Amino acid sequence: MSDAGDMGLVVVGAAGRMGQTLIRAIHTMPGARVAAAVERPDSAHLGKDAGELAGIGIINVPIVDDPLPAFAKADGVLDFTAPAASVEFAGYAAQARIVHVIGTTGCSADDDARIAAAARHATIVKSGNMSLGVNLLAVLVEQAAKALAADDFDIEVLEMHHRHKVDAPSGTALLLGEAAAKGRGIDLSGNSVRVRDGHTGVRKNGSIGFATLRGGSVVGDHSVILAGTGERITLSHHAEDRAIFARGAVKAALWARAKKPGLYSMRDVLGLS
Amino acid sequence: MSDAGDMGLVVVGAAGRMGQTLIRAIHTMPGARVAAAVERPDSAHLGKDAGELAGIGIINVPIVDDPLPAFAKADGVLDFTAPAASVEFAGYAAQARIVHVIGTTGCSADDDARIAAAARHATIVKSGNMSLGVNLLAVLVEQAAKALAADDFDIEVLEMHHRHKVDAPSGTALLLGEAAAKGRGIDLSGNSVRVRDGHTGVRKNGSIGFATLRGGSVVGDHSVILAGTGERITLSHHAEDRAIFARGAVKAALWARAKKPGLYSMRDVLGLS
Amino acid sequence: MSDAGDMGLVVVGAAGRMGQTLIRAIHTMPGARVAAAVERPDSAHLGKDAGELAGIGIINVPIVDDPLPAFAKADGVLDFTAPAASVEFAGYAAQARIVHVIGTTGCSADDDARIAAAARHATIVKSGNMSLGVNLLAVLVEQAAKALAADDFDIEVLEMHHRHKVDAPSGTALLLGEAAAKGRGIDLSGNSVRVRDGHTGVRKNGSIGFATLRGGSVVGDHSVILAGTGERITLSHHAEDRAIFARGAVKAALWARAKKPGLYSMRDVLGLS
Amino acid sequence: MSDAGDMGLVVVGAAGRMGQTLIRAIHTMPGARVAAAVERPDSAHLGKDAGELAGIGIINVPIVDDPLPAFAKADGVLDFTAPAASVEFAGYAAQARIVHVIGTTGCSADDDARIAAAARHATIVKSGNMSLGVNLLAVLVEQAAKALAADDFDIEVLEMHHRHKVDAPSGTALLLGEAAAKGRGIDLSGNSVRVRDGHTGVRKNGSIGFATLRGGSVVGDHSVILAGTGERITLSHHAEDRAIFARGAVKAALWARAKKPGLYSMRDVLGLS
Repeated sequence: MSDAGDMGLVVVGAAGRMGQTLIRAIHTMPGARVAAAVERPDSAHLGKDAGELAGIGIINVPIVDDPLPAFAKADGVLDFTAPAASVEFAGYAAQARIVHVIGTTGCSADDDARIAAAARHATIVKSGNMSLGVNLLAVLVEQAAKALAADDFDIEVLEMHHRHKVDAPSGTALLLGEAAAKGRGIDLSGNSVRVRDGHTGVRKNGSIGFATLRGGSVVGDHSVILAGTGERITLSHHAEDRAIFARGAVKAALWARAKKPGLYSMRDVLGLS
Repeated sequence: MSDAGDMGLVVVGAAGRMGQTLIRAIHTMPGARVAAAVERPDSAHLGKDAGELAGIGIINVPIVDDPLPAFAKADGVLDFTAPAASVEFAGYAAQARIVHVIGTTGCSADDDARIAAAARHATIVKSGNMSLGVNLLAVLVEQAAKALAADDFDIEVLEMHHRHKVDAPSGTALLLGEAAAKGRGIDLSGNSVRVRDGHTGVRKNGSIGFATLRGGSVVGDHSVILAGTGERITLSHHAEDRAIFARGAVKAALWARAKKPGLYSMRDVLGLS
Repeated sequence: MSDAGDMGLVVVGAAGRMGQTLIRAIHTMPGARVAAAVERPDSAHLGKDAGELAGIGIINVPIVDDPLPAFAKADGVLDFTAPAASVEFAGYAAQARIVHVIGTTGCSADDDARIAAAARHATIVKSGNMSLGVNLLAVLVEQAAKALAADDFDIEVLEMHHRHKVDAPSGTALLLGEAAAKGRGIDLSGNSVRVRDGHTGVRKNGSIGFATLRGGSVVGDHSVILAGTGERITLSHHAEDRAIFARGAVKAALWARAKKPGLYSMRDVLGLS
Repeated sequence: MSDAGDMGLVVVGAAGRMGQTLIRAIHTMPGARVAAAVERPDSAHLGKDAGELAGIGIINVPIVDDPLPAFAKADGVLDFTAPAASVEFAGYAAQARIVHVIGTTGCSADDDARIAAAARHATIVKSGNMSLGVNLLAVLVEQAAKALAADDFDIEVLEMHHRHKVDAPSGTALLLGEAAAKGRGIDLSGNSVRVRDGHTGVRKNGSIGFATLRGGSVVGDHSVILAGTGERITLSHHAEDRAIFARGAVKAALWARAKKPGLYSMRDVLGLS
């Protein structure tokens, strides 16, 4: 348990790219502080100062390899690591009865079940995308898709990312497409149009179209368009900076501090579920 | 009472610009038909065919001046006239126990009270803006403004209209600003910034900014931007055509046909209240 | 030859959809008037008033089937018909020594040669897209593509059209892609990426990407994006109304009135060639 | 004079915010290297490694206070300092017969005259905005404004910046407005509309409107809209990162390396003057 005042947060995977971004995010946001920085036992960075490694100067938090004492003195954990590690950390968070924010992707059903079990004692917030804006957008898209009939409004999802991205559409574009399909009460995979070239025929009623742009250093732009007769609604998210995922995780931790143990999503953090 | 099948709609003010647009909208939308067309007793168009006047060819609906027999044989009334007339039509709709869609603006508190009284027997849908898209956008803006804290996300409202518009910001921009203020639990008038020029100082936390573009023949574009650190959400509506207000009124009538008497809004039509 | 004052324009194919749009465009634009309206000898509309048919009321111009006397008394001809007809009309315009604006598409090399021959005596403006805006955009895209190196800026072309469009990308998107390729000094067909789905790999340097959106009643939106490291330029055209092609044709005729016989393009009309 | 190969660049003001950005930009761009780093004699950073200070690790370039030996061994100088310093550096660049890229703002007519004099022996590129994209956009805006008549197309300039910006419209918005006015052959100050609120009356023909948005951490978005009847052209620049000014300066230096002494602008670098 931390002192009163700022929420003490442990960053696991602290020497990785996302770990460093988390440390910088905590550093700039009011109400939180870096309580500890954890890495794997074989990390070359053990003993280094986590702040110096992240480029914000010395913060007197050395990188350590034992999570247990770190968790014991903290209020929460920020975790963008890997499924097996996150399951383990969830158990420790339950023992310490603290907040565990999980941005890890790729968890199996079994991993998810073990995390849910830990949530009886830990206050866990888990989401595949920690951006406040993207999660809000998904909620709004679902509502819009539900309110506007498929016969009247066609749904299109547009995304743009930097030239180095190797797959299309983006995971976030698919997440938004899923939100639209849920609002419509349909299955995305059976109703999506992912390619248009040459003779396409007229647009199929009720389908959800995707279009992909690639270029420059674009961090991530997403738009969902609902196009009707004579009017169009466009719901967009523009990311300037990958740090929004880290900031969203800190926001989630601050929100969860006052909540009972349980398994929450970013929709809960936004007050929208 | 109409036959089974298409909903029979009376257009009041049928020879005016909006009346003609309503007749064209009914003509192109499935599930509705023009049951009657009403104008004032001094109209120069009495006796003319309402379809021919609206440019869609003869539909065998002559323009008449007596609303009572017209209402008696119809399922609903579409009304973009004036407050005094709409109050009177609401009474007739109550007698006929039919749907009354009111797009009239400028009603006094007394007018609204009389319309509410008529809604004990008539099924009334009343809104200052009959576009499905704008009403949906307002709902989404309110939710977004509520979900994203004022310390983190700044709200701006941008609109563009044609070169002939003589006031700024548009009524719809203010409606969207009100929705944002409601979501934030603040008063718009005390928190809006409507002019920026020269030395403005830094943006005041929690304020709602407006910006206005004018040019060409733009029917009406509106965007609400929620700008945070590292990310931005933009919720936009683009109108191609003034006919969307007429189409929205027809949609409202079709929705209301199956509802009990009462006073409804476009949010009810959208299933969002 | 017309009187001094407004330019007298013959509309050929006057009873068709584009012919009617041309008559409405001439009617609303200062400096031009409808001098005659020509249709094929088998048209059901011969003898009708061209203005009444186009929905603007009687203009006292009956639809006739003989182009020669019509051309003799006019200053110019607006022609969105078919290749064989346009070649014939070019010959008549040469005899009458008047302006001939040709928006007809699908001309063969032989058709084009015969039109060029007629341009020794007629002042001909010919373009596959008569919109001022699209033609200007193509010029700007070519310059931007030339000024910004392919190693630094990636080019993407995005278009959106209504749900009824049956092919992709649009002809205008390809026209803009050609302009970009010309600015880069490359061949479009060998460097375009028209589909992205699944594992695409990183973006190929120097390629020109296309993305297509379909929905609602969108008349035609086009954007060319030049995305570099840390900055992006977007050059867009938004069409509200198909009448812009008719308006561009009238503009071209008014511009050509003072020009010597010859074969001109919309770039000449814009003063950009 | 440098070795063959990468262009050796001196950064003056190397310990400041823009100096550090310049050092990072040189570091990431092919064809250039940091030859020296200069600060004022009273700088607290003399002797430190310029790369380490800029956060890219040690590059073995200590910060020094004497420009003369630094210039003597270099191919060019990047300078975002202050007018008096830039005038002095221009003289040294002339002595060394090297490239001098000047992004300094606020120079007096006398400063400019002295810089022009130095350009007899130095190859100087000077611009108030070193972004390639913004400079290109200004050229395109001028051409578009010239090609599209003021009676037909209304020009509007929209900008958005972060919540901390204290003035409006931005300098870049005014630069784009100046480009539009130049294309139209009018004076901006007598034809700009910078505020719209309440009863504005119809848009004045030929005027250039400005609108300003503020919020979040937006680095800088600018759009110039040319709105006509039925169509609209939008020319936009989106800055992700303030480093684009540093990158533009390096680009300018690389371009200037092969040029004769003289005074050049970013339009020359873009090949557009």
